Amino acid sequence: MSPVALPVATAAVLHGATDLRVEQRTVWPPRAGEAQVAIFSTGLCGSDLHYYTHGRNGDFVVREPLVLGHEAAGVITALGEGVSHLHVGQHVAIEAGVMCRSCSHCLGGRYNLCPRLRFASSAKTFPHLDGTLQTRMNHPAHLLHPVPEHCSPERAALAEPLSVVLHALRRASLQPGHTVLVLGAGSIGILAAAVAKALGASRVAAADINRARLDWAHGHGIADDIYHIELSSPSSTSTRSNNNAEKNSNSKPGDESIRRARENSQHALKVFGALEGFDIVMECTGAESSAQMGIFCARTGGKLMLVGMGTPNMNLPISAAATREVDILGTFRYANTYPSALALLGAGVLRGVDDLVTHRFPLEKSEEAFTLMRKGFDDHGNVVLKVMVQSTTN
Amino acid sequence: MSPVALPVATAAVLHGATDLRVEQRTVWPPRAGEAQVAIFSTGLCGSDLHYYTHGRNGDFVVREPLVLGHEAAGVITALGEGVSHLHVGQHVAIEAGVMCRSCSHCLGGRYNLCPRLRFASSAKTFPHLDGTLQTRMNHPAHLLHPVPEHCSPERAALAEPLSVVLHALRRASLQPGHTVLVLGAGSIGILAAAVAKALGASRVAAADINRARLDWAHGHGIADDIYHIELSSPSSTSTRSNNNAEKNSNSKPGDESIRRARENSQHALKVFGALEGFDIVMECTGAESSAQMGIFCARTGGKLMLVGMGTPNMNLPISAAATREVDILGTFRYANTYPSALALLGAGVLRGVDDLVTHRFPLEKSEEAFTLMRKGFDDHGNVVLKVMVQSTTN
Amino acid sequence: MSPVALPVATAAVLHGATDLRVEQRTVWPPRAGEAQVAIFSTGLCGSDLHYYTHGRNGDFVVREPLVLGHEAAGVITALGEGVSHLHVGQHVAIEAGVMCRSCSHCLGGRYNLCPRLRFASSAKTFPHLDGTLQTRMNHPAHLLHPVPEHCSPERAALAEPLSVVLHALRRASLQPGHTVLVLGAGSIGILAAAVAKALGASRVAAADINRARLDWAHGHGIADDIYHIELSSPSSTSTRSNNNAEKNSNSKPGDESIRRARENSQHALKVFGALEGFDIVMECTGAESSAQMGIFCARTGGKLMLVGMGTPNMNLPISAAATREVDILGTFRYANTYPSALALLGAGVLRGVDDLVTHRFPLEKSEEAFTLMRKGFDDHGNVVLKVMVQSTTN
Amino acid sequence: MSPVALPVATAAVLHGATDLRVEQRTVWPPRAGEAQVAIFSTGLCGSDLHYYTHGRNGDFVVREPLVLGHEAAGVITALGEGVSHLHVGQHVAIEAGVMCRSCSHCLGGRYNLCPRLRFASSAKTFPHLDGTLQTRMNHPAHLLHPVPEHCSPERAALAEPLSVVLHALRRASLQPGHTVLVLGAGSIGILAAAVAKALGASRVAAADINRARLDWAHGHGIADDIYHIELSSPSSTSTRSNNNAEKNSNSKPGDESIRRARENSQHALKVFGALEGFDIVMECTGAESSAQMGIFCARTGGKLMLVGMGTPNMNLPISAAATREVDILGTFRYANTYPSALALLGAGVLRGVDDLVTHRFPLEKSEEAFTLMRKGFDDHGNVVLKVMVQSTTN
Repeated sequence: MSPVALPVATAAVLHGATDLRVEQRTVWPPRAGEAQVAIFSTGLCGSDLHYYTHGRNGDFVVREPLVLGHEAAGVITALGEGVSHLHVGQHVAIEAGVMCRSCSHCLGGRYNLCPRLRFASSAKTFPHLDGTLQTRMNHPAHLLHPVPEHCSPERAALAEPLSVVLHALRRASLQPGHTVLVLGAGSIGILAAAVAKALGASRVAAADINRARLDWAHGHGIADDIYHIELSSPSSTSTRSNNNAEKNSNSKPGDESIRRARENSQHALKVFGALEGFDIVMECTGAESSAQMGIFCARTGGKLMLVGMGTPNMNLPISAAATREVDILGTFRYANTYPSALALLGAGVLRGVDDLVTHRFPLEKSEEAFTLMRKGFDDHGNVVLKVMVQSTTN
Repeated sequence: MSPVALPVATAAVLHGATDLRVEQRTVWPPRAGEAQVAIFSTGLCGSDLHYYTHGRNGDFVVREPLVLGHEAAGVITALGEGVSHLHVGQHVAIEAGVMCRSCSHCLGGRYNLCPRLRFASSAKTFPHLDGTLQTRMNHPAHLLHPVPEHCSPERAALAEPLSVVLHALRRASLQPGHTVLVLGAGSIGILAAAVAKALGASRVAAADINRARLDWAHGHGIADDIYHIELSSPSSTSTRSNNNAEKNSNSKPGDESIRRARENSQHALKVFGALEGFDIVMECTGAESSAQMGIFCARTGGKLMLVGMGTPNMNLPISAAATREVDILGTFRYANTYPSALALLGAGVLRGVDDLVTHRFPLEKSEEAFTLMRKGFDDHGNVVLKVMVQSTTN
Repeated sequence: MSPVALPVATAAVLHGATDLRVEQRTVWPPRAGEAQVAIFSTGLCGSDLHYYTHGRNGDFVVREPLVLGHEAAGVITALGEGVSHLHVGQHVAIEAGVMCRSCSHCLGGRYNLCPRLRFASSAKTFPHLDGTLQTRMNHPAHLLHPVPEHCSPERAALAEPLSVVLHALRRASLQPGHTVLVLGAGSIGILAAAVAKALGASRVAAADINRARLDWAHGHGIADDIYHIELSSPSSTSTRSNNNAEKNSNSKPGDESIRRARENSQHALKVFGALEGFDIVMECTGAESSAQMGIFCARTGGKLMLVGMGTPNMNLPISAAATREVDILGTFRYANTYPSALALLGAGVLRGVDDLVTHRFPLEKSEEAFTLMRKGFDDHGNVVLKVMVQSTTN
Repeated sequence: MSPVALPVATAAVLHGATDLRVEQRTVWPPRAGEAQVAIFSTGLCGSDLHYYTHGRNGDFVVREPLVLGHEAAGVITALGEGVSHLHVGQHVAIEAGVMCRSCSHCLGGRYNLCPRLRFASSAKTFPHLDGTLQTRMNHPAHLLHPVPEHCSPERAALAEPLSVVLHALRRASLQPGHTVLVLGAGSIGILAAAVAKALGASRVAAADINRARLDWAHGHGIADDIYHIELSSPSSTSTRSNNNAEKNSNSKPGDESIRRARENSQHALKVFGALEGFDIVMECTGAESSAQMGIFCARTGGKLMLVGMGTPNMNLPISAAATREVDILGTFRYANTYPSALALLGAGVLRGVDDLVTHRFPLEKSEEAFTLMRKGFDDHGNVVLKVMVQSTTN
């Protein structure tokens, strides 16, 4: 095959903070075990926005041009040697993390914990592995998951955030009849609520500091009950007890915020009419105060799932968790979730999932997509949930 | 309190095979830890029918007059000493099994396995514990479960068969995206299918020898796909291979039926388009041939749940199960399921559940109820699924 | 039965901080479902010491005279009505917590989480439930566990702290071949190490700030490897980086201690030759710095078990836990552990378990027992691990 | 590298039933991701003996010359490209099954169920994959497991049968204090007993029809109690009841053997003094009558693990299992067990494990090894348990 015959892809390449350039790239034929995919849709994620805005995401710095995007679906355009379970023309969702398949975590089925995992669109490993904000790419075939009939590419692209949520709910051992509280009603929180309902949770509540998001979740029938967290809410009434508390020589800095989180939680549980707390609390913000509330809002014997990423160190009411055996379980991405996520998306059982994509941009206007995402509201005052970038195959 | 003040209950009492008498009984006040319930609705179960028809159920013989019925809901009419979590006028579902709460099974949370459990309406223990086919009865308060709002007594009475199904699906570790095959589309099978769908199963199929039941399940949107098992179906084509097999000196009596079950299974999986088999197979008939199919229809690494009771000894293709790690898990009633079952019934997420009650009789006509149940079809040719007996409180 | 015939028990009764009085009490016959036990041995626990020293334990204040002690074994002297599985003369270990047996936690097998649980020797519920520092007491029969042959009463009394450890290791899902690190080599930590070895842990390490305890654990073949935590150890070398860190405007108070815990952990793992960390970390001190180390010392995908009780609020490196899916699981006492604990004690497979009892006192000298326990070392400079109080039956 | 430099291996090659030829073969350099191993020791397994004796094992027929053996350990002699976690001279145990690492079973951590798995020494896949009865071979590096210090190659070779046992005990969720019954005291049964003891089983019993094996297990302190199954034992006393039973028109052929198994079981449990049955029964014979006994000997709520392979179809007392929730779990080889198995072997906690190797032969005398194995006893009347073939590296 001569180089002339090779397809050329358009890619949105990040060269540094807010330096996103649309470029043309030659796409090599897929190697053994790989397939080539023409990307249709890529959902943008908070980590993409971090990279775009700061040229880094936490400790991971962009050290060479990087293509962002990892929530994607497309169609197979070519197969590498030895790939027999896919065919050209097949619609697939792309699982972005490429694990080593040799370490104990991979062999044991928890490949999300693989220390050698390379994640498309992340700058953690070097050289970086490019993401899906491009029109065509090669990817290991075992990470391309067939999309069920009647499931649009855009919906299939949601298999990634849905995987985050499924992984967390599996680790939480959600049982039918469980009650679930979602802290943070962004796209992950909304998906968590929708999935919990689809899996037989008897009641799903949501709390957030953003009333528009709560209204969206409630209006779409996803959250049965909502609670608006007022950031300084019950604190005014408790200032005096606070002063007293500070006279207590044992109190540490930070204990006051825990006291406030307990008050907020008690208030929320009262409003929800759920004084015993929730079987599962999904913390989807990454904020310390939210994790604190998560412990107080969990039922005895329940679970606090840390889905959001944020404050690295947190002052938490550990005794309130330990003496009630409220387990604190972090989650890191997902493993073995794509087939289930796609099956749920195909079955059409997730409420509001199609409306979750609030805004769309062509690949060439990725920069505008990031700008809108950063604002959180569009010019009409509508809330921004999931922003989708559409690649036109060439 | 003078005896004159005591309420009198009407009860349908079984005195022997098909000898069911409607009688009046004085109801004593509830003892400490008990509550008194006016029964509204009792669903009839196959074991009730066995007792009615034969005066026995397997090894358990009716040795004294016995009130049948154990799928019931009603309203609290009086509280015994020390009962504080219920109130008069509260609607409750009645959990019929009274466990000892002291043995290792009870303390460990598997009280359905309690060797001293006394089950209302069963002749296993002596003296027998009366069931719910009466207008009023006392029962331990911790076995009376509050019914959620908007859930009728009749639907609440379904918490019992629903518990059977929930217990089995919990033991099966149903995960979102799993595929489920139900063998036997009677009321338990239909509930199993409905619950599996409500818990995120991506696909639910049903097979039965009774086409009317399959059509009912499919028509109510409960079973995505149905398969009609023809009892002698692919056997005609295989008679010759059968003859050959019998020449094989290693073949045992019964191996031929296993061979036929394998053929039936392969045919069914082909029709379903599910050649890999199903993650979970719910065997709801108790028939040997169905359990055999269950093993062949289960996916490698999947589970065969034995929900139906029937043939005590079964010739099963054990190697086909063991080498594929298809677990064979029996289930005996349920434990810790009522709150979840009632939550699901209250949430209204189970398709077709209200239509499951196909026929209703007043308590005084319990005998007619059993007669209809035995026939399986009513005078209009409609299938009989769940027959409900309604008590008028007095 | 005339009151004259009733036995009189000697009890060590706490009337307030350090006000422990030896008193005589009439013992009533056991009620239905109870048995009467002549106590042989009671091990003292940190919570007993707290009550003795401060007249309170955390939020729980002694409001009426209270008998302490809850790690006990004795012999049955009388049976209440309906108790058939025990007999007079039988040796039993006493499970101190009396659960309600009606709530969802009890029915579900997690009775340690019962909100109505009354714990013998605790001032949490009022009236208080007396403990075992007496010669004779009545107790629910289902909480009296037969002691196997060849197991002395003193060893049987260890079934309580052993239960704490078993419960934690069950929750940790210890698997054969797992590596285990114990933080804190007091009696709980030592038992945790001994049990982990007996359950097939391939390697058990211990760390403590107390070198004598570590030497004891290592000398008894319980800890394969030990690490002495020097409280200010690597901090001297890091003072400068600390200063730099404080210039970083994002750093919070408390982050420095986390940084130090990370350094201590890296050093410990290097010394242990276990750079990947341990599958299970048992935190048995309740100290914040130890819990911090626990997270850093846990292997990716491992578990930090919070067994020790201490600082109510803790500043923890949550991202370091969540992104590696190191689960943070608190444990509260135990459920369904006594039979297993006694079986292990009877089988004689726990190394060093008999030497764990370092000091013994008669009931009348309970005060001396507490005084010694508070000191931590006896007059000969020997470490104090488990102090046992022996009741002479009367 | 010139071909002249390539090492030559000696191999025992099976050309057909009992046609085993010692041959020389050139060993190619290891490919990328592989390593080359000089084999030290290979334990012989029942499946090897089947292939040797019949030229087939069940449905799998030897269609081309095949090297048997899959319980092996050796030393690394060369590394293929990209292999960095091993080094030349390192002692390793060889995991014989080569999985695809792409299917849902592999990604989910149950690679033993991989439909594309190729197992060294098995004729299931074609071309066959050669086993370890040779002096040198190449193998995927991620399937070579470092042997701990102080663990001889011979003991390391036991990591394979130990893996079978560990996998089964993991699936059985063995908990400390559980009681375990092993049916069949061959090398697998003996290892099962030894491991159960090392993992905290409070009591381990063994039953077999072969008294010599039982005596061996008891004499080595592996089985606490033993029971000799007399094949026709309690049947004589029950002939009459049998005759009565046969008059019962419901009885099926085969029910009589189940009745006998129940009697044998009741007798065994009485002798063991374990009337409640065992928490876990490890069936290690593959015989129908033994599986039947396994159900009757399991405790309510317990587990029957089918470890032995044998009769494909079995007539089992399914109701006796289902109504007591005795789970019937087959096991197929193992996954993720080698590191744990080697850790246990290195820790030296398995009683009698070194004596398990009763006979040794050089590679050149592999035929004699099989002949002895088939006899079951050597010329001195000693029982044959594990036969080890030793390769001399060249």
